[in-house]
Amino acid sequence: MDLWFNDEHTDTVKLSIKVEEQFFSQQSSEQHIDVLQTREFGKILVVDGDIMLTEKDEFIYHELLVHVAMAVNPNIKEVLVIGGGDGGVVRELMKYDSIDIIDVVEIDPLLVDVCKKYLPEMASSLDHEKVHIYHEDGVRFIRSLDDEYDLIIIDSPNPYGAGEGLFTREFYGLCHKALHDNGIMINQHESPFYRDEAFMVQRMHQKIVQSFPIVKVYQGFIPSYPSGHWLFGFASKAYHPLDDIKEEAWNALDIPTRYYATRLHKGIFALPVYVEELLKDVE
Amino acid sequence: MDLWFNDEHTDTVKLSIKVEEQFFSQQSSEQHIDVLQTREFGKILVVDGDIMLTEKDEFIYHELLVHVAMAVNPNIKEVLVIGGGDGGVVRELMKYDSIDIIDVVEIDPLLVDVCKKYLPEMASSLDHEKVHIYHEDGVRFIRSLDDEYDLIIIDSPNPYGAGEGLFTREFYGLCHKALHDNGIMINQHESPFYRDEAFMVQRMHQKIVQSFPIVKVYQGFIPSYPSGHWLFGFASKAYHPLDDIKEEAWNALDIPTRYYATRLHKGIFALPVYVEELLKDVE
Amino acid sequence: MDLWFNDEHTDTVKLSIKVEEQFFSQQSSEQHIDVLQTREFGKILVVDGDIMLTEKDEFIYHELLVHVAMAVNPNIKEVLVIGGGDGGVVRELMKYDSIDIIDVVEIDPLLVDVCKKYLPEMASSLDHEKVHIYHEDGVRFIRSLDDEYDLIIIDSPNPYGAGEGLFTREFYGLCHKALHDNGIMINQHESPFYRDEAFMVQRMHQKIVQSFPIVKVYQGFIPSYPSGHWLFGFASKAYHPLDDIKEEAWNALDIPTRYYATRLHKGIFALPVYVEELLKDVE
Amino acid sequence: MDLWFNDEHTDTVKLSIKVEEQFFSQQSSEQHIDVLQTREFGKILVVDGDIMLTEKDEFIYHELLVHVAMAVNPNIKEVLVIGGGDGGVVRELMKYDSIDIIDVVEIDPLLVDVCKKYLPEMASSLDHEKVHIYHEDGVRFIRSLDDEYDLIIIDSPNPYGAGEGLFTREFYGLCHKALHDNGIMINQHESPFYRDEAFMVQRMHQKIVQSFPIVKVYQGFIPSYPSGHWLFGFASKAYHPLDDIKEEAWNALDIPTRYYATRLHKGIFALPVYVEELLKDVE
Repeated sequence: MDLWFNDEHTDTVKLSIKVEEQFFSQQSSEQHIDVLQTREFGKILVVDGDIMLTEKDEFIYHELLVHVAMAVNPNIKEVLVIGGGDGGVVRELMKYDSIDIIDVVEIDPLLVDVCKKYLPEMASSLDHEKVHIYHEDGVRFIRSLDDEYDLIIIDSPNPYGAGEGLFTREFYGLCHKALHDNGIMINQHESPFYRDEAFMVQRMHQKIVQSFPIVKVYQGFIPSYPSGHWLFGFASKAYHPLDDIKEEAWNALDIPTRYYATRLHKGIFALPVYVEELLKDVE
Repeated sequence: MDLWFNDEHTDTVKLSIKVEEQFFSQQSSEQHIDVLQTREFGKILVVDGDIMLTEKDEFIYHELLVHVAMAVNPNIKEVLVIGGGDGGVVRELMKYDSIDIIDVVEIDPLLVDVCKKYLPEMASSLDHEKVHIYHEDGVRFIRSLDDEYDLIIIDSPNPYGAGEGLFTREFYGLCHKALHDNGIMINQHESPFYRDEAFMVQRMHQKIVQSFPIVKVYQGFIPSYPSGHWLFGFASKAYHPLDDIKEEAWNALDIPTRYYATRLHKGIFALPVYVEELLKDVE
Repeated sequence: MDLWFNDEHTDTVKLSIKVEEQFFSQQSSEQHIDVLQTREFGKILVVDGDIMLTEKDEFIYHELLVHVAMAVNPNIKEVLVIGGGDGGVVRELMKYDSIDIIDVVEIDPLLVDVCKKYLPEMASSLDHEKVHIYHEDGVRFIRSLDDEYDLIIIDSPNPYGAGEGLFTREFYGLCHKALHDNGIMINQHESPFYRDEAFMVQRMHQKIVQSFPIVKVYQGFIPSYPSGHWLFGFASKAYHPLDDIKEEAWNALDIPTRYYATRLHKGIFALPVYVEELLKDVE
Repeated sequence: MDLWFNDEHTDTVKLSIKVEEQFFSQQSSEQHIDVLQTREFGKILVVDGDIMLTEKDEFIYHELLVHVAMAVNPNIKEVLVIGGGDGGVVRELMKYDSIDIIDVVEIDPLLVDVCKKYLPEMASSLDHEKVHIYHEDGVRFIRSLDDEYDLIIIDSPNPYGAGEGLFTREFYGLCHKALHDNGIMINQHESPFYRDEAFMVQRMHQKIVQSFPIVKVYQGFIPSYPSGHWLFGFASKAYHPLDDIKEEAWNALDIPTRYYATRLHKGIFALPVYVEELLKDVE
């Protein structure tokens, strides 16, 4: 059957992917969730019409959200994940024995259930005893916390719908407070290429710069995301992402990866001129 | 009018771009050439149904083909461009006063005419007196040459159709012969993401490794190309692309760029683990 | 979610319908069956990638398969339906109290199950005690029959795949034998507009003309089928479809319809000149 | 090149046609005009994004606009065409030697020029000395006329944009006044299938019924138009379209046609039950 899913990049650009089967389609309290089977990307998780992740390239996104911070501070013990109900971030975090606590604040219980059923390779990680899932609003959860985590990872789709509050200056301030003195905050940071998303990049960067002393942006190739050029934010109270990398220590851990390597670490912080300028405009 | 151009990435994935107007459509002796006007990407040059370049992101591709080599050897004087009838590579080369000769071997005269008419911002560079265009087959042109150039840039679409001979081991050997002792060869190197193109990456890399002593692959974000993750080959008789970079010399030239910077230079050679493995398989 | 089903009319023409949800997708022993929910057409039953019927306009197809013959002979008692596992033809037949027996030969049991679950407004008719379903090949079923039915309705998709044998001269001959002396055979007859289907129209018509003394073709507007212009065959041993219509008798039955009326009956046999010529070519 | 034109039927249904080349694209003072080359439909004239006509099936539309009235009154001498700048209606009218005057009121001179260049098989008819083209608004042109024509044909796309005034009760009243006592008005009448167009059908019919004593609707199969089921209006001061047909006289003229025939004439006025009900609702 000739069935195609279109992921809208802009009003006049879309990535069109042939669908073998729609496995799941339901409106949760927060968002519309679909799971599609495709030949090229394997299973695709779609939320409110946008690709959240695909089996083929989710490893790139999740490795970049986790290992950059871990290579800077391999002693991280307590981690908070905002969003991340698919389990991809947690799966990467579970590769570190040193991590004791992984709190996941995923507002949508249905998302977790769907991923456990259709994407167990990722979501089964959520069943580990180190992991606690809180089905709450991320802002509300973090509000009262103080000096609790070594690492906060913001794995939230975009500043529309359910995750809106996670893109405010107030929220980044709360993250700062919830982190220990050497704490690191990592966030998915949208794409610099198409105009509307580039504008989001700027707004997020501006707010994070106002909240943390050390802020750097890095990038990765994620073909299923709009433009394939995706940014990530590294914000920290103490560590510089390049100067403070513990290359030997991290490599000694022998963490299995398919995208990240310390060899790559410096490279991903080297941004194209036009992206540097985009960020400098709001620093 | 609801008119869409689909660029096929695989049988089941395509990038779909709304077209405002088709400016040109004609079969040349070599290939079918189309020029489309779009809102998001500006004008798009399409050859045999595939995107060759778009006004919006061609700067990324052309800067990466030119400035990496120039930063390694800013004294380059004689350059050969295989393909490149659109003038994008030449436009970047013209930023260097030190370059004396730019020979362009573009088999298709119609391509040059079309680009001069519709993409003059690129193609007008071809009119400069330093530039000589040869409408010949690249393999035939290079066969008799010996010790002629400092830099050869292979800007040819893919190993199908007109450019087939440009992807053979014989051809890379001829390039080696045509280069001076410190010569550099740069080639567009396809994408590592989708299987068929990843296979091309391997075949090209294998042949280049057999022809040059120093071979490295680097990468850039080119959103209009399949997967957005594009590779380039750096092959050299003498220079190492990282060890031998002349950072200060190049920066002193004050070349205007929107993507490339020496700060970026090392980063683009840091490849993801899965791409490293792809290449190592054939080294 | 931006999900679209394309029904291919020709290599270069397709009807594209937005899908709200894919309710069902499975390969049976005979064919691939999909059920899609759409806003414009309601549920759509798709077999091997082609639209079989839609909730919005199936009434046109099914009324035209049944009531034309019933208006010519309102005393029909024994009916055979070849194909028709969706129950649409049977639903129309059930409007006649005079009909005693409805035998349905539907090779694919899964099709019946799927329709009972997703299209009960049609398929629930199959549960009536007058109805017997035989999950057999149509040709095999009819081979041994002689003088058994007043009406045979061939409701089979097209001469590819499962239904191939239903489009042969041998099969039409077996239908002739299985009918009483005043028997009528009705078949869906493809569309005259696109070339490949027009060719099928000719092949079917040629074979039916060779098998029955009275053969006429009529037409209806079925927007979800290729071109929207659909033909039906009326073949008979004794009755002429126009001269022998029992207009008063049929109207006295007060059969509820949304497309067919005896007022329409003559009109639908008046074919466009180009369709007449298509048919005459093979008579 | 994979280039597709989508003709929107509803928000969720479109006919998608592969384009070989866009021959013309320009905004006139009235509307946006495109001419596309396609394999299946030949050249397509697109106005404001909608298919106006295709080379493959325009004959159906134009024959139905002309010959139905001519068979009712083969003595028609003076004809007014509102719209019709493509020349298709005039080409059919030119088949009648008895017609003396054909006035064409086409507001858009560019449309005529484009059709003369790209669709000469139709538009060359406009050059005949019997034909006078007035580039005026149809309502303005007809306002002062009284008892001038035997036949008025309203060949105007739809009640949006340039042709809005042609769908008002005032306009139908002006047509009535401009006709002789035995005058006939024919109009394209949209499609009854999709809801928005069915609503237009009703609004037009209601206004015409209020303006003429005899009003009947007939239909044709036009595959390139939405749903393929297209209606036409026959409104008259004196003639009944069925009772007053001059079958012998018309057939004696030996007019060459590919769709219309007097044999077909009665059939096309036999409307499906659901269309009858749609019309009765507003009579």
